[in-house]
Amino acid sequence: MDDEAAMALALDEARAAAGEGEVPVGAVVVSGDGELIGRGRNRTVASADPTAHAEVLAIRQAAATRGGRLVGATLYATLEPCPMCAGAAVLARVARVVWGCDDPKAGAGRSLYTLLSDPRLNHRCRVTGGVRGDEAAALLTAFFRKLRA
Amino acid sequence: MDDEAAMALALDEARAAAGEGEVPVGAVVVSGDGELIGRGRNRTVASADPTAHAEVLAIRQAAATRGGRLVGATLYATLEPCPMCAGAAVLARVARVVWGCDDPKAGAGRSLYTLLSDPRLNHRCRVTGGVRGDEAAALLTAFFRKLRA
Repeated sequence: MDDEAAMALALDEARAAAGEGEVPVGAVVVSGDGELIGRGRNRTVASADPTAHAEVLAIRQAAATRGGRLVGATLYATLEPCPMCAGAAVLARVARVVWGCDDPKAGAGRSLYTLLSDPRLNHRCRVTGGVRGDEAAALLTAFFRKLRA
Repeated sequence: MDDEAAMALALDEARAAAGEGEVPVGAVVVSGDGELIGRGRNRTVASADPTAHAEVLAIRQAAATRGGRLVGATLYATLEPCPMCAGAAVLARVARVVWGCDDPKAGAGRSLYTLLSDPRLNHRCRVTGGVRGDEAAALLTAFFRKLRA
C-alpha cells in the first residue's frame, strides 16, 4: 500500500468522524509488510475522552496486534500530530509518520515542535508531511465553517 | 487534600505497578473541589499499549466523570510527564500538574520541554515539580536495579 492509498483510508476515517459530529481527523497504521493493523478517528466528544484522538486510537489498536510495539510500521494521519499523538508515536516506536495538512496551532511534527525527530528522545520517526493535505484541510475547513454557521 | 496527601496516593499506584512488573509510575487526578476522580498506574506491558501511562489512564478515568474536560483539576504524577502525557494534560484542560521526580530523559514539564506551559498552545497548566520526589525516584531506581540484577 503506497502513501496515497493509505492516506485515502485515513481520509475515510476523517469523513466518518465529521458525520459523527467530531472534528474530522482520521488515522491508520500500516505494518512494515504492508498490512493495515490499526485505524481510528477522532472520538473525543462521543467518548468524553480528551485522549481519543484518531492517532492514539489507531496506535492502540495496532499495538494490541503486535505486543505493544510498532517497529517498522507507518502511522498515517490526516492532520499533523499534536504533542500527545507525536509522543505516543515515539513511545510505540513507529518507524515513520505521514500526515496530510500541517497544524500551525498545535502540530508537533514540524509546526510548533519536532517531537517525532528529536535526537534527545530514545526513538525517532521519519516524517513526511503534505500527503493529500488539501483534502484533509478541506474537511476541517468545511467542518468548522458549518459549526460557526 | 493537599499536595503531599495526593502524591501519597500516586505513590501507592506506583508501588502497585512495580508489583505487577511495570515501570513504577503512578498518577491521580483531584477535582477542583478536592475529590479524587481518577487514578492510574503504568500498564504498558500488561495491556500491550504504549499509551497506557499512569497519567493517561488517570486522565481518561477522570474525564469520563466530567464530560471530557478537567477544568479546575490537578494531575499528580510520581514522575515528570513525558510529551504524550503532558500533551494529554493540556488537551484535558487540567489546571495544574504536580510531579515527583524530574525525568531528564523525556520530561516535558521542564526537563526537555515546557509543554505544560507553552503560551502557543490553547491551554496552559500551572506546574510544580519535586513533591515527594525522593520517594518516587527511589521506586524507579529499585525497579531498574532489580531488572538489571
